[in-house]
Amino acid sequence: MSSENASCAAGTLYVVSAPSGAGKTTLCRGLLQQFPDLSLSVSYTSRPSRPGERDGHDYHFVSAACFERMIDEGAFVEWARVHDNYYGTSLAVLRQASAAGQDLLLEIDVQGAEQLRLAGLPLVSIFIAPPSLAELRRRLEGRASDSATVVALRLENARTEMAAAERYDYLIVNDTLAQAQLQLQAIVLAQRCRSPRVLAQWRKRWLQE
Amino acid sequence: MSSENASCAAGTLYVVSAPSGAGKTTLCRGLLQQFPDLSLSVSYTSRPSRPGERDGHDYHFVSAACFERMIDEGAFVEWARVHDNYYGTSLAVLRQASAAGQDLLLEIDVQGAEQLRLAGLPLVSIFIAPPSLAELRRRLEGRASDSATVVALRLENARTEMAAAERYDYLIVNDTLAQAQLQLQAIVLAQRCRSPRVLAQWRKRWLQE
Repeated sequence: MSSENASCAAGTLYVVSAPSGAGKTTLCRGLLQQFPDLSLSVSYTSRPSRPGERDGHDYHFVSAACFERMIDEGAFVEWARVHDNYYGTSLAVLRQASAAGQDLLLEIDVQGAEQLRLAGLPLVSIFIAPPSLAELRRRLEGRASDSATVVALRLENARTEMAAAERYDYLIVNDTLAQAQLQLQAIVLAQRCRSPRVLAQWRKRWLQE
Repeated sequence: MSSENASCAAGTLYVVSAPSGAGKTTLCRGLLQQFPDLSLSVSYTSRPSRPGERDGHDYHFVSAACFERMIDEGAFVEWARVHDNYYGTSLAVLRQASAAGQDLLLEIDVQGAEQLRLAGLPLVSIFIAPPSLAELRRRLEGRASDSATVVALRLENARTEMAAAERYDYLIVNDTLAQAQLQLQAIVLAQRCRSPRVLAQWRKRWLQE
């Protein structure tokens, strides 16, 4: 259905935010598997690529100078500088995908999502939350990788981020992964049943007798 | 989840319309089985009950005089007279359900849906359409019950009704029943992930540490 849609209706931009540890990456990976015609939006970054990362797939890797020139040219609908590295979402990439009827999935933090809203881009925003900060703490502490300091920092950030949840269209509480995955899938499936999108595809065929 | 919601968030009114033969009854029955906490809104009617019909379950059966008094009292958010019988939806029933956090499913024609919109009631409207009028004709002619005249009338009505599809939030093309059922289910599942509804349930639990 969606591939047919692609030729005749604007694509949808799905923006997903979540506190670290809420399960966003797992859920988004699952969603991309469920909808092969939904692609992950690739951000630009000035940080060096890590082993295994592919340019144009994981990120568009550019130099800091190039990134700054793109900022000056207004190329980014949202961008941030984190630990001396730039990260940004290209407006052109989003516009081209929408015009081509391509649905895009954009994993982004709450500040980035707010910039997208302010830019007036039509989007479907989804916030993924843990059932509670207590549960999030358990999950973060379960990660061997994170020090106590990092866990404390992530919990503090989570508190701030969860306060922004009400500005999202949808809110998925990742209590059990299976249920959360089903809800995320339903949001995309329902979005594809929105009248304008379906009409763009079906109106002509309807009145055939 | 929804039963928990019921105690703390307003219920949602799902309004479903479809041309005769599009599969609305089958799809709505399936939806009610998938969501036991979703109930069918029971209309009032002045027509006599048929064998097997139960008062308060299939309809609220009242006399024509009683129905007319209710009209004068403004009891109906929408009503119609069909073949000397009245049919109507009670505003009080809808308000009570919403206040109780009860989700209601209302099967209604396009004129009734328009009256509900004009009444300013918050609702999620879903139009179910056949893939084409040609296919609808095949389905209607497949019904032994309907005469050629009835089929012709239903097709003429379908043409008019399908022109109203764009005023609905969602549009499901019943090409294959399984796919249409999945889409209808997704619309309800997604609606239950709307931020205000989820926040009403989770906000307190979130900040527990």
